[in-house]
Amino acid sequence: MVIDLNADLGEGFGIWRLGDDLALLDVVTSANVACGFHAGDPVTIRRTCAAAVDRGVTIGAQVSYRDLAHFGRREMDVEPEELCAEVLYQIAAVDGVARAMGGRVSYVKPHGALYNRICRDETQAAAVIDAVADYDPSLPVLTLPGSAVHAVAAAEGVPTVCEAFADRAYTPAGTLVPRREPGAVIHDAGAVTARARQMAVEGSVTAVDGSSVPIAARSICVHGDTPDAVRLARGVRDTLLAAGVVLQAFA
Amino acid sequence: MVIDLNADLGEGFGIWRLGDDLALLDVVTSANVACGFHAGDPVTIRRTCAAAVDRGVTIGAQVSYRDLAHFGRREMDVEPEELCAEVLYQIAAVDGVARAMGGRVSYVKPHGALYNRICRDETQAAAVIDAVADYDPSLPVLTLPGSAVHAVAAAEGVPTVCEAFADRAYTPAGTLVPRREPGAVIHDAGAVTARARQMAVEGSVTAVDGSSVPIAARSICVHGDTPDAVRLARGVRDTLLAAGVVLQAFA
Amino acid sequence: MVIDLNADLGEGFGIWRLGDDLALLDVVTSANVACGFHAGDPVTIRRTCAAAVDRGVTIGAQVSYRDLAHFGRREMDVEPEELCAEVLYQIAAVDGVARAMGGRVSYVKPHGALYNRICRDETQAAAVIDAVADYDPSLPVLTLPGSAVHAVAAAEGVPTVCEAFADRAYTPAGTLVPRREPGAVIHDAGAVTARARQMAVEGSVTAVDGSSVPIAARSICVHGDTPDAVRLARGVRDTLLAAGVVLQAFA
Amino acid sequence: MVIDLNADLGEGFGIWRLGDDLALLDVVTSANVACGFHAGDPVTIRRTCAAAVDRGVTIGAQVSYRDLAHFGRREMDVEPEELCAEVLYQIAAVDGVARAMGGRVSYVKPHGALYNRICRDETQAAAVIDAVADYDPSLPVLTLPGSAVHAVAAAEGVPTVCEAFADRAYTPAGTLVPRREPGAVIHDAGAVTARARQMAVEGSVTAVDGSSVPIAARSICVHGDTPDAVRLARGVRDTLLAAGVVLQAFA
Repeated sequence: MVIDLNADLGEGFGIWRLGDDLALLDVVTSANVACGFHAGDPVTIRRTCAAAVDRGVTIGAQVSYRDLAHFGRREMDVEPEELCAEVLYQIAAVDGVARAMGGRVSYVKPHGALYNRICRDETQAAAVIDAVADYDPSLPVLTLPGSAVHAVAAAEGVPTVCEAFADRAYTPAGTLVPRREPGAVIHDAGAVTARARQMAVEGSVTAVDGSSVPIAARSICVHGDTPDAVRLARGVRDTLLAAGVVLQAFA
Repeated sequence: MVIDLNADLGEGFGIWRLGDDLALLDVVTSANVACGFHAGDPVTIRRTCAAAVDRGVTIGAQVSYRDLAHFGRREMDVEPEELCAEVLYQIAAVDGVARAMGGRVSYVKPHGALYNRICRDETQAAAVIDAVADYDPSLPVLTLPGSAVHAVAAAEGVPTVCEAFADRAYTPAGTLVPRREPGAVIHDAGAVTARARQMAVEGSVTAVDGSSVPIAARSICVHGDTPDAVRLARGVRDTLLAAGVVLQAFA
Repeated sequence: MVIDLNADLGEGFGIWRLGDDLALLDVVTSANVACGFHAGDPVTIRRTCAAAVDRGVTIGAQVSYRDLAHFGRREMDVEPEELCAEVLYQIAAVDGVARAMGGRVSYVKPHGALYNRICRDETQAAAVIDAVADYDPSLPVLTLPGSAVHAVAAAEGVPTVCEAFADRAYTPAGTLVPRREPGAVIHDAGAVTARARQMAVEGSVTAVDGSSVPIAARSICVHGDTPDAVRLARGVRDTLLAAGVVLQAFA
Repeated sequence: MVIDLNADLGEGFGIWRLGDDLALLDVVTSANVACGFHAGDPVTIRRTCAAAVDRGVTIGAQVSYRDLAHFGRREMDVEPEELCAEVLYQIAAVDGVARAMGGRVSYVKPHGALYNRICRDETQAAAVIDAVADYDPSLPVLTLPGSAVHAVAAAEGVPTVCEAFADRAYTPAGTLVPRREPGAVIHDAGAVTARARQMAVEGSVTAVDGSSVPIAARSICVHGDTPDAVRLARGVRDTLLAAGVVLQAFA
């Protein structure tokens, strides 16, 4: 019973902040550090990496479409060569900053619209995986099981790691209920922590039809963009520890 | 009689191009690759690094203030912590892309207004040198002799390399005549190539008062932003080779 | 026999230029001025507007997705409220600059990926038309006949003007052959000028199957991004004038 | 006894927020709306203008250097032609959006580093005033008394309005104590509201040496970037109303 907790970190830009990074760094075992394309200026990246290194939290590059204005949340028809170069640039930048702070980038997590797009778009998935392979083919990519990017990564020999979302509803097929559908996001704190415990201890999730679906997640994603979110993340952590789960980064 | 020829490369952005990079890569021994802050999108950086590796041209990170709109040509009062992080991010990004292409960043050349500012501003110079030291303290910084950044680098143990400009007028003290003064830039092709030859062979330059001033440049900077500039750069190269000078990167 | 010639103008950014704006302003009757979102910094916008006013060329706002890095050429899933506000902001900015130069924005032409998207996406088309209606519902929108944006504009009472492309192949249904298909773009100068003449004089175009298709274009779009393009645009103008066509802006 | 309360509004960008705009709009009589160059995306600008119009709050264009990454807080050596065009573009964009919401830009307030720079730099001050004069020479510019921009505006016939800061220490000469000096910013709520009252009722401020200095401010600037700041702004408003001061926009 070993699981990782990952969260998005360093998602401010310039004067603007998003969430309580330091509080969240005491909760998670893996920090998805924004690379500057949807959020994350160089000072924020450096401080976030330094704080992660201080706490022994593993650093990942949270790569994104180039879209500060919309926080990387709008799908874009970027050409594969451009997308590949943009992802490579982001991984390199954060890895170099992390190394200067005594750490390194140990995995890659696509962000927002890019995350969703490469679950189904093989061309863009291949562009992302090419970038990882160009930089360091041993870096695992954190994403959803059964997605296009998993298949592409397997074919290229790039490792993938599956994550689960304790606050999201699942279909009987083990996929996420789309956000636009009612009930897609679970807000009840007790329900979320119970689901996290089930995911980590039993390796399953209860789908919307009540069935139990096996789920092979090595990591659970938590959020930290509001004070409530940080409290909830802390609750997930405490619940997992109380259940005897070992919290440990996958990378 | 060994000298390096360096030029700014990869200074397009998105659809926009500046200069003939491939022609210039056949002239120089060191390529100052724009890092994305004054110019240089990830695709351009990757292509430029790949082309430099193909031709055996050494790659440097041409770091800049964050200012695409003004091409890094406006001095900015950036706080040292921010400037340091911005320079570190740029070096890391281009080095990572260069390594993926089979090369690496072997030196750092500040661009435009930052180049000028750190010749006299010790605080900003220290921020730049801190970034280099954080990333790799063995990376030399290419800049003007006698500048603030040289002193700061020496104190931090970061190597510096001096460059000269064959198309710029010099004062008897060995400093550049400011651009706003008449005659600051030399346009006559014969004069430019003759000055380059004098710099490389005799280690001196003829100042505006006619005196000969010793100049210990290990590199000569050439330009490539117009067809005429590329022709002139080629002329400098041919003249140096004809004079028996060995063209070789310093890094 | 009255027709307008329109072209994209002011598509540089900062130090970077694209095409020969002044040459093109002597050819066209309507200038689609880039608004700063895919190209066009404020100085360029002001100079372009001033030059258009000097020559009596009508000014349009060439609105785009927010995407300098990809020149507005990548479709983006922007939310309608965001897209509407972005288009409104762009029209307002260029109109204000144009008025300060003695002119005004007299029409709106969507650019690149946005142009293509709103030919078929009613939601984004409505967002663009809402912005025009919010700013000035009498401003015509320049686009393709039969497109989604035409229907949406008609329903909102915003006028539209149809344009044709002399250098593009047409299907028998009167739509453009997609760029990715062979023969989609016509490069032969004689063919392009002949087609422009046919469009303006006969109100028709010869489709790829040889049939003559009626085309009710009030404007023909020409390009100016290369020296050849400017020559071709000048050829189109000369041919139309020689055929007795009156060149006159539609707005 | 009539005074205006002004505050910076709409200073978020994309997903990021800064301050509680709606709460502040219930306090002030003039809203300095960020124009997109240091903060303020089009949706935020539109919503802020709409909310200001709803509450009868006067709208001003808060123009800035182009610097989202540093929130317009770094002085930049922008060329006058560029700065003038950038300011013109910003005023036009926000005025157009405001008009679409039923309001209009009624004054201009420079932001951050630009505000400070044009208090002493006549060249940049002239560039800003030229932009205002180009757009609408009747628009007043809100700034500090005795500054370079006042003199330049007077010479060009552009009106200026003086503002005061209730939370800043003043020298006996009536200028602000620089922020880097101890005691420059007054944090005690009671002191701040008492000073605002003195400014509005007596037209004076108590300087750091205890002397009373006349101050001819038509507006007092309040802040809203933290919950405490909003509370303090509300306290200033309540104190002024209780003292019989009429709160009324200057424009």
